[in-house]
Amino acid sequence: MHLFYAAHIDPEFHILSQEESKHCRVLRIKAGDFVYLTDGKGNMFKAIVSDNSTGIYHLKIVEHFTDFHKKPYRLHIGIAPTKHTDRFEWFLEKATELGICEFTPLLCEHSEKTHLKYERLEKVLVSALKQSFSAYLPKLNYMVNFSDFVNSAFDQKFIAVCTENLPHLSSVCKPGRQTTILIGPEGDFSENEIMLAQKNNFIPITLGKNRLRTETAGIFACSVVNIINS
Amino acid sequence: MHLFYAAHIDPEFHILSQEESKHCRVLRIKAGDFVYLTDGKGNMFKAIVSDNSTGIYHLKIVEHFTDFHKKPYRLHIGIAPTKHTDRFEWFLEKATELGICEFTPLLCEHSEKTHLKYERLEKVLVSALKQSFSAYLPKLNYMVNFSDFVNSAFDQKFIAVCTENLPHLSSVCKPGRQTTILIGPEGDFSENEIMLAQKNNFIPITLGKNRLRTETAGIFACSVVNIINS
Repeated sequence: MHLFYAAHIDPEFHILSQEESKHCRVLRIKAGDFVYLTDGKGNMFKAIVSDNSTGIYHLKIVEHFTDFHKKPYRLHIGIAPTKHTDRFEWFLEKATELGICEFTPLLCEHSEKTHLKYERLEKVLVSALKQSFSAYLPKLNYMVNFSDFVNSAFDQKFIAVCTENLPHLSSVCKPGRQTTILIGPEGDFSENEIMLAQKNNFIPITLGKNRLRTETAGIFACSVVNIINS
Repeated sequence: MHLFYAAHIDPEFHILSQEESKHCRVLRIKAGDFVYLTDGKGNMFKAIVSDNSTGIYHLKIVEHFTDFHKKPYRLHIGIAPTKHTDRFEWFLEKATELGICEFTPLLCEHSEKTHLKYERLEKVLVSALKQSFSAYLPKLNYMVNFSDFVNSAFDQKFIAVCTENLPHLSSVCKPGRQTTILIGPEGDFSENEIMLAQKNNFIPITLGKNRLRTETAGIFACSVVNIINS
């Protein structure tokens, strides 16, 4: 079952982009084969390859599924990007596979990374979307200051901190909700940041006794929310 | 809090290996500083650097914690190594951070990877142990045939398969137990393998509706068991 992506899909016919057509050729897909197509907004289409003689794949849609495998929750993670880009990309990939809805990279007091290559990161998301056969492309926001972000988030809100004797995320996070979780940089959030988050009704939580890397903490938080809603 | 590793530790004095001493130098640790030391078998030591004038670090143990942050469960994952080594190494690193006890690489019908560099993988485990401030180094077994492994595992046993309408791991896995979970290669387990596992009392489970990469499935399974025991 091969899945392809396009931001806009005509409900009857669709011509794949050069990049997606190339991916089809690599997979040796030929005329008459069935493929799947998603717009990343919950629509999943089954289609047949009607022509690929020019190298560009023409598809005829034969079935349309709306709200495909829609999750009963929305998870938004605000996270300080890691110093090494591959670790952050790995987080984006895994979080997409595990059903996250939205990412906001955070600029924190202890942040080591202050710039991102958004175009490249979008490609990571699309690739993970296709790989995981999901119809929902997560939204990747531009990096914002920690203080601006904590002002704007809503519904159930948590901040993961490396302090003992806090409730575990899995014991306080409720299912079926919009959830925002903050994950800090390697040097953790500053005391000011934790106070500011608490003022804005973020609940401090732990992710367990082991000291987790930023990207592991992010994936583990996605897993917790996924499991609570399973 | 810097943690160092040695397989055997004298309870009074310890001399760090060349490699660990080099790591100390990189971190600019000097005589009089406190560091932590573990043997990966549950012992955690607090120590003071008594001498580093030769470049090799001499430590005097000042405190000894046994069964340090001992987990109330044992998780053993049998997994088909991924084609790309970096994805398998990621899995080992993250699973170690999340508290796994034992890995067995599996040779399956659809396996794409048949050889591993164990020495390099051991280094990944030690590095993740130190990073996560854990006192338990997971055991990495040599690769075995799927059929040999399913014969030998015991207690509660699950096999993750890509079939609909199976119970979710989080709904059937019980806390406080020895748990073995099988994670298949990219092309999933073969029907024969699934049948053989079932004959050996492995319960087929799902990890959710999204199609997960092998290493994501492995990390998600570790997260589920970790959360159930939190």
